[in-house]
Amino acid sequence: MSADGRPRLGIGMVGHSFMGAAHSQAWRTAPRFFDLPLETEMTAVAGRTAESAQVAADRLGWLGSEASWKDLVARDDVDLVDICTPGDTHAEIAIAALEAGKHVLCEKPLANSVAEATQMADAADAAAERGVLAMVGFTYRRVPAIQLARRLVEEGRIGTVRHVRAQYLQDWLTDEESPLTWRLDKARAGSGALGDIGAHVIDLAQFVTGEQITGVSGMLETFVAERPLAESSAGLSAVAGSGRGPVTVDDAAAFLARMSGGGIAVFEATRFAAGRKNAIRLEINGSRGSVAFDFEDMNVLHLYDADEDAETAGFRRIVVTEPGHPYLAHWWPAGHGLGYEHAFTHQVVDLVGAVATGVPPAPSFRDGLAVQKVLAAVEESAADGSTWRGV
Amino acid sequence: MSADGRPRLGIGMVGHSFMGAAHSQAWRTAPRFFDLPLETEMTAVAGRTAESAQVAADRLGWLGSEASWKDLVARDDVDLVDICTPGDTHAEIAIAALEAGKHVLCEKPLANSVAEATQMADAADAAAERGVLAMVGFTYRRVPAIQLARRLVEEGRIGTVRHVRAQYLQDWLTDEESPLTWRLDKARAGSGALGDIGAHVIDLAQFVTGEQITGVSGMLETFVAERPLAESSAGLSAVAGSGRGPVTVDDAAAFLARMSGGGIAVFEATRFAAGRKNAIRLEINGSRGSVAFDFEDMNVLHLYDADEDAETAGFRRIVVTEPGHPYLAHWWPAGHGLGYEHAFTHQVVDLVGAVATGVPPAPSFRDGLAVQKVLAAVEESAADGSTWRGV
Amino acid sequence: MSADGRPRLGIGMVGHSFMGAAHSQAWRTAPRFFDLPLETEMTAVAGRTAESAQVAADRLGWLGSEASWKDLVARDDVDLVDICTPGDTHAEIAIAALEAGKHVLCEKPLANSVAEATQMADAADAAAERGVLAMVGFTYRRVPAIQLARRLVEEGRIGTVRHVRAQYLQDWLTDEESPLTWRLDKARAGSGALGDIGAHVIDLAQFVTGEQITGVSGMLETFVAERPLAESSAGLSAVAGSGRGPVTVDDAAAFLARMSGGGIAVFEATRFAAGRKNAIRLEINGSRGSVAFDFEDMNVLHLYDADEDAETAGFRRIVVTEPGHPYLAHWWPAGHGLGYEHAFTHQVVDLVGAVATGVPPAPSFRDGLAVQKVLAAVEESAADGSTWRGV
Amino acid sequence: MSADGRPRLGIGMVGHSFMGAAHSQAWRTAPRFFDLPLETEMTAVAGRTAESAQVAADRLGWLGSEASWKDLVARDDVDLVDICTPGDTHAEIAIAALEAGKHVLCEKPLANSVAEATQMADAADAAAERGVLAMVGFTYRRVPAIQLARRLVEEGRIGTVRHVRAQYLQDWLTDEESPLTWRLDKARAGSGALGDIGAHVIDLAQFVTGEQITGVSGMLETFVAERPLAESSAGLSAVAGSGRGPVTVDDAAAFLARMSGGGIAVFEATRFAAGRKNAIRLEINGSRGSVAFDFEDMNVLHLYDADEDAETAGFRRIVVTEPGHPYLAHWWPAGHGLGYEHAFTHQVVDLVGAVATGVPPAPSFRDGLAVQKVLAAVEESAADGSTWRGV
Repeated sequence: MSADGRPRLGIGMVGHSFMGAAHSQAWRTAPRFFDLPLETEMTAVAGRTAESAQVAADRLGWLGSEASWKDLVARDDVDLVDICTPGDTHAEIAIAALEAGKHVLCEKPLANSVAEATQMADAADAAAERGVLAMVGFTYRRVPAIQLARRLVEEGRIGTVRHVRAQYLQDWLTDEESPLTWRLDKARAGSGALGDIGAHVIDLAQFVTGEQITGVSGMLETFVAERPLAESSAGLSAVAGSGRGPVTVDDAAAFLARMSGGGIAVFEATRFAAGRKNAIRLEINGSRGSVAFDFEDMNVLHLYDADEDAETAGFRRIVVTEPGHPYLAHWWPAGHGLGYEHAFTHQVVDLVGAVATGVPPAPSFRDGLAVQKVLAAVEESAADGSTWRGV
Repeated sequence: MSADGRPRLGIGMVGHSFMGAAHSQAWRTAPRFFDLPLETEMTAVAGRTAESAQVAADRLGWLGSEASWKDLVARDDVDLVDICTPGDTHAEIAIAALEAGKHVLCEKPLANSVAEATQMADAADAAAERGVLAMVGFTYRRVPAIQLARRLVEEGRIGTVRHVRAQYLQDWLTDEESPLTWRLDKARAGSGALGDIGAHVIDLAQFVTGEQITGVSGMLETFVAERPLAESSAGLSAVAGSGRGPVTVDDAAAFLARMSGGGIAVFEATRFAAGRKNAIRLEINGSRGSVAFDFEDMNVLHLYDADEDAETAGFRRIVVTEPGHPYLAHWWPAGHGLGYEHAFTHQVVDLVGAVATGVPPAPSFRDGLAVQKVLAAVEESAADGSTWRGV
Repeated sequence: MSADGRPRLGIGMVGHSFMGAAHSQAWRTAPRFFDLPLETEMTAVAGRTAESAQVAADRLGWLGSEASWKDLVARDDVDLVDICTPGDTHAEIAIAALEAGKHVLCEKPLANSVAEATQMADAADAAAERGVLAMVGFTYRRVPAIQLARRLVEEGRIGTVRHVRAQYLQDWLTDEESPLTWRLDKARAGSGALGDIGAHVIDLAQFVTGEQITGVSGMLETFVAERPLAESSAGLSAVAGSGRGPVTVDDAAAFLARMSGGGIAVFEATRFAAGRKNAIRLEINGSRGSVAFDFEDMNVLHLYDADEDAETAGFRRIVVTEPGHPYLAHWWPAGHGLGYEHAFTHQVVDLVGAVATGVPPAPSFRDGLAVQKVLAAVEESAADGSTWRGV
Repeated sequence: MSADGRPRLGIGMVGHSFMGAAHSQAWRTAPRFFDLPLETEMTAVAGRTAESAQVAADRLGWLGSEASWKDLVARDDVDLVDICTPGDTHAEIAIAALEAGKHVLCEKPLANSVAEATQMADAADAAAERGVLAMVGFTYRRVPAIQLARRLVEEGRIGTVRHVRAQYLQDWLTDEESPLTWRLDKARAGSGALGDIGAHVIDLAQFVTGEQITGVSGMLETFVAERPLAESSAGLSAVAGSGRGPVTVDDAAAFLARMSGGGIAVFEATRFAAGRKNAIRLEINGSRGSVAFDFEDMNVLHLYDADEDAETAGFRRIVVTEPGHPYLAHWWPAGHGLGYEHAFTHQVVDLVGAVATGVPPAPSFRDGLAVQKVLAAVEESAADGSTWRGV
C-alpha cells in the first residue's frame, strides 16, 4: 500500500532493447498523466548479464536489476512481469511468471509457433482462475485513432464490413547490403515480415472489425537470400560485419482472407516498400461507410459516412486530439498530437486498470493465439500453392 | 486526301453510350490540339436503331449514322471502326471489321472469354500482315502520370520491381437497392468488378512494370445476391423498376500474383468501397525507389528515389503538367490539369499516329488477350480454393 | 433559326492565343454535353493579320476569319463577341461591340485601369437596357468545386464568414533568366501578378462569400528588375532573345482586407512560389464551419461542419463529381474528374443560357469593375506605405 | 557532482498548469533518451499556495515544492529556474532569478510589452557576463522537421528567400459561448492570438530563414466582444460561469511584412479557423526551392528543389524520423513519429548542453525581445490604419 492509499504494483521487465525502452517510457509516464488505481513501481529489469541489466536500470529508471529473468520472476516485490525479449523466449518466461502468480504483459508475437502460443494461452486461462492476468502487447490497438475506429465500427457507423485492406509497409531491407539481424533468423524470430509486422495488422483488423479471420490464401517471398553478417545485433540498427549468411525468414508476405462477418480482406506486410517507413494502413469499407488509417499520420482517422447527402459526403479527416477522443483528455489541447510511444503508455494504463479491477484485459493470450493461427495458416497456404486454409 | 494534303481517315463508331460519348469527344478534340498526320473524319456512328443512331450522330458530331454495325463496317468511307459496345459483342464486330480491312479500336475488356479473345488476337495478327491495325482501349495507360510512371520504370529509376499494389475501388453498388444493369449480368458483361475494372489495373500493372503476371491466387465475392430490376439500362445511371433479379457477376475481386521479374503483387477490384469513387491506385516498390498513383488525383505522380540522401528522401508529388511530360506540350500551361476524357484524346492521337506509320499500336489485341488470361486464371483459382494458377 | 428550331447565336472571337484556344474548346464542346437553348455557331475569329486569323480558324474550328476585330464586330452574323486579347485592348473592343448590339464575353481583368473599367461597366449598363448582355471571364467561378462552395456558403453551412485566406501561387518566374513577355510589361498587362492572377482570387473570394471587399492594405514587390528580352511573346512559353529589358510590373502582391460581412481576409498572388504550379487556394472559415479549395486538386472541395460532434468532426474531402454537383450531371460517372478547360465550357453554357432568357449573367462588367477597384486600391495602398484604402 | 561524475543541475519550476506539465515531462524524459552532460535534478516546483505546489510536485515528479517563486529562487540547490506562468509575471521572476545567479528558461512570449522585454534582455546580457544563461521557450523551433527546414535553408538548398507564408490557425473560440479565460484578458495575456500564437510563427519565420522582419503592416480583429465569465480558469479548458465580460484582446491578427533578405511575408494568427486545431503552417519559397510545414502533420517536412529536372521535380514528403534527422538518433526507428511534447524534451537537451558548455543558448532573451518588437509594431500599425511600421 502506498502513501496515498493506493495498492502497490511492482513491475519487473525482461529485456531492455528497443521494446524495453518503449515500455520503460510508458511505466514512467503513465502515472504522471493518468490517475492509476494502483501505485506502480518500476522494481527491476532483467538482462543477460548483471552488468548490462544494471546499466539499463539506471538508464531507463528501474529501481533494481537482475542478471536473469528467473531471478526477476522469483522476487516477491514483483507483481507483474513485462516481457520485452524476442519471440523464441516468450513461452518459457510467460508460463513461468504466470505459474509464479505474476501478471504478465508479453510483447507480440505471442510466440514463434502455434504450439507454444497454445501452451501460453492455456497457462493464461489457468492463471486467470487464480486472479492472475495476462495481456499480449499489440500496442497499436491503443493509438487513439485506432480506438476511435473501433468505437465507430462497434456503434454501427459503417454498417456491415465488406472489405478490409490492411498493409504494414516498411523499407529498411530495401538495401541488399543491410545486415542480418536476429529478425532475419527464423530460429529467433519465428518468421519475417509476416510475424513481425504482419501480426500487427492482423490483430488490428480483427480488433477494429470485432470479427475473426476464418480462412486465408497466402504468399511469402524472400527477395534477398543472403546478407552480410551483423557485427552486433542491436535492434534495427545493426552494423554489417564480415562474412555473409542466409536470410531464413520471409522478406514480404501477402494474403487474401475472409472475415467472420462475410467481408473479404487483403493483407500485406513487407520490409521492401521503398519510401514507406512505418506505414500501417487499415481501411475498412462497410455497407454504410468506411474508416481509414495510416500510421504515418497517426493522429488522424478518416471516416466516410455513406448516409450523408451525396453532394456533401466525403472522407472526414478527423484530427484525433479532442478531449472526447480515447485517452486524449489526459494529454494536451486539441491539435497537439501524440507520438509512437504514447500507445505504450495507454497500454500500461489499461493493464493497470485491469489488474485493479480483476477484469481480464484485451488483447488476451487467446487473442494472441488467434493471430498466431492466422500466421501459421498463411505459412501453410503459401507452402501449398496458396491453397485456401481455414483458421 | 484532304485539302491540306494529309491522307483522310474515316472513322465509324459502334455504340454511343458512356464510352461512345468519351470516344466522340476524343475524335472531336484530338485534331484541335495535336498535329495529326491524317485528317480524321467522324464519318458515321452505328446504333441499335436508325433513329437512335441519328440522334447520337447529331449530338456527338458524327456526319452520318447507320442502323447496324454491319452497315457501318461495309461503308467504303470508313477506314477505322471504333467499338464502344458491351463486351459480348466485341469479337463478332472486331473480327468482321478486321476482315473487311478496317483498322479497329476496341473497348476493353477485349472479350468476355479467353476463347473469344484468342480469336480476336489471331484475327488481329492476320490483319496486321495486310497492314490493318488493331488496338484495345485500355485508356488509363494514356493518363500522363501513368505514362510518366512507365517512362521512369523503364529508365530504371526504381530498379528491380519488388511489389505491385494495385486497386480499383468504386462504391456505386454499396447501396443494396441500386438496380441491376447489364454490368451485373454475366451473359452481357462477362464478369463483374474483376473484368470491368480489375482488367484496367491488370493492364496498368503490366504496362508500367513492363512485366507479365505469371500466376495468381484469386478470391471473388458477390455481397448482394439479388437487386431490383432496372427500368432502363442507360450506363451506370439506371433507374430501378419493379421486380428483382439475381446478380450473376462478382461484386468484388482480389488476387495475389507474381510478376515475371520476380516481384509479388496484390490486386483488388470492387464496387463496394464506400467513399472511393474511382480510385485507381497503383504503387510499385522497386530496389531503388517507388512510384505511386491514384486516379482521384490524376494529374499527380508520386516518386520516391531511394538513392537520395536519407535525410532529404521522400515521395515527390510531381504535378504532371509540365511541357516535358507526356502529351502535355499540347495542352495548357503548367498546373492547369487535365480530366478523365483527355486520356481518350491521347488514345486517338497514338492510334492515328500508328495508322499513319503502320507501326502496330499498343496495347495490341494480344495484350488484351493477356489480360483476359489473367482474368480467367483468377476466376479458375477462385473457384478452386484459391489454388495457384499459372497464366 | 436552326434546323431543330432553336434560335441561332453567331459567335465571333477576338484573339486566338492561350485564352482563344481555351474558349474555342468550350464553344466546340458545350453543345455536345449540354442542351443549349440556342444553336451556337462558331462564326469567325479575328487576329492581327488575315493569315494568322485563318490559320487559327482552321485549327480551332471557326467557320471564318477576319483580319481585324472591327470587321468581326461589323458582321451581321455575329451576335456575340468573345474577347480573348490582352487587357489593354478590352475597353475599345468591348464598348464597340456592345454599341454594335453584340453580346460580349470579355476575358479578365476587365481592363487595365479603373477608368477604363468604369467606361465598360457603363457601356454594359446602357447595352443591357437594349437587351444586350455582357459578362467578364472569371472562369474559375465555374469550377464545380467552387460552385459547390458558393452553394454551401449561401445555404449558411459555414455561418458568418470570419476569415478568407486566398492565394494564387505560381512559379514560372522563379528562374531569373525567364524572358520578358507582354505579361511583364505594364503598358500591355496593366499589372503583374496582382492583376493577372490576383484578380482571380479577389473575384473568387467575393463570389464564394457573396460579400464585397471594403478596404485593403497592400504590398507589391518586383524581385527581378531586369530580364532577357523575349524573342517571341507567345503566351507563357516565350523564348529568350538578345538584350535585356526592365520588368515594369509586380512579381508578387500581398494584401490584407476586410469583408463587408465583418470578416477579415489575407490575399497573396505570386509567380515566385517555387514548386506551386497553379495553386489557387481559397479557405473560408465561418462561425459554423469552413470550406477549403486548391486548384492543384481541382475536383475536390473540403468542408468542415462545426455543428458535428467534436469526436467525428473533420474536414470532409468531397470528390465533386456526383450527378448532383454543379454541371456534373452532364459529364462522366462519379470519380471521373474534370480538367482546367471544363470551366470554360461551363462559362459558355451559362452565358448562352443568359442570352436565351435575357437574364444578365454573372460576373457582370460591374463585378469586373469591382475587382478592378480592389486592384487599384491595393496599388495605391502599396505606394503609400500600406496605408488602409477603402474600396 | 553526481554518482557518475557529472555535475548536478538543480531545476526549479514556477507554474504547473499546461506549460508546467509539458516542461515536467521534458525534464523527466530528457535524461532517459539523451546523454546529458549534467545530472539534472527536478528539485522543486513553486505555485500559488503551498498545497497546490505540493500536489503538483507529487503529480509531476518534483522532489519538493515552494509556496512562492521567491522562495524557489532563493534556494541554493536550484541552479536553473524554469518559468511557466502567464506573461505578465515573466519579467519580475526572470530578472530576479538572473540576478540571483540562476540560469533561466522562460516561456514565451518573453513579456507583455517591449519595455518589459527590454529589461529582461538587458538583465540577460548582464547575467551572461557572469556566466548565467537565459533562454526563451519558443519550443516549436525544436520540432525535428523545423530544425531540418532551418538546416536546409542555411545550406542554401532553397536559395534566396522570396516568400514567407506563416499561419497559426486554431478554432477553440469559434463557439461564441466559449468562456473568458485569462488568455482573453489583456492585463494578463498582453495580447490575444497575436501574442499567444502569432509570436510562435514570427519566431519560426525568423529562425528558419535566419533573417529579421524589418517592417510590418498589421490588422487586428475581435469578432466576439463579450463572453461568459469563466468559473475556473484552468488553461484552455475553462468552464463557463454566470455573467459576461468583455474580451480585451484580439481574436485574430494578420500582417504583411518584409524580411531583411529582400523577401516578403504574410502572417496570420487566429483562434477562429473552424476545423484547424493547431495548424502551424510555414512555407518558404526561395530562388532555388521551397520548404513547407504543417504542425497537424508534425513529423513531415515538404521540400521542393527547383534545380531538379522539371519532369521529376515535386514537393518531397520527407518523413522526419531518420537517424540522421535532428534529435532522431535518440528516439525510435524510422517511421515511428514523435508528438507535441518531444519538442520540450529537445529544449531541455539543448539548454542543458548550453549550461554545460557555457555557450549562450538560442533563442535568447534578445531573440524574444525581437519578437516582442514585431508584436508591438503590428499593434501600432493596426491602430494606425495599417500604416507601415519599421521594426
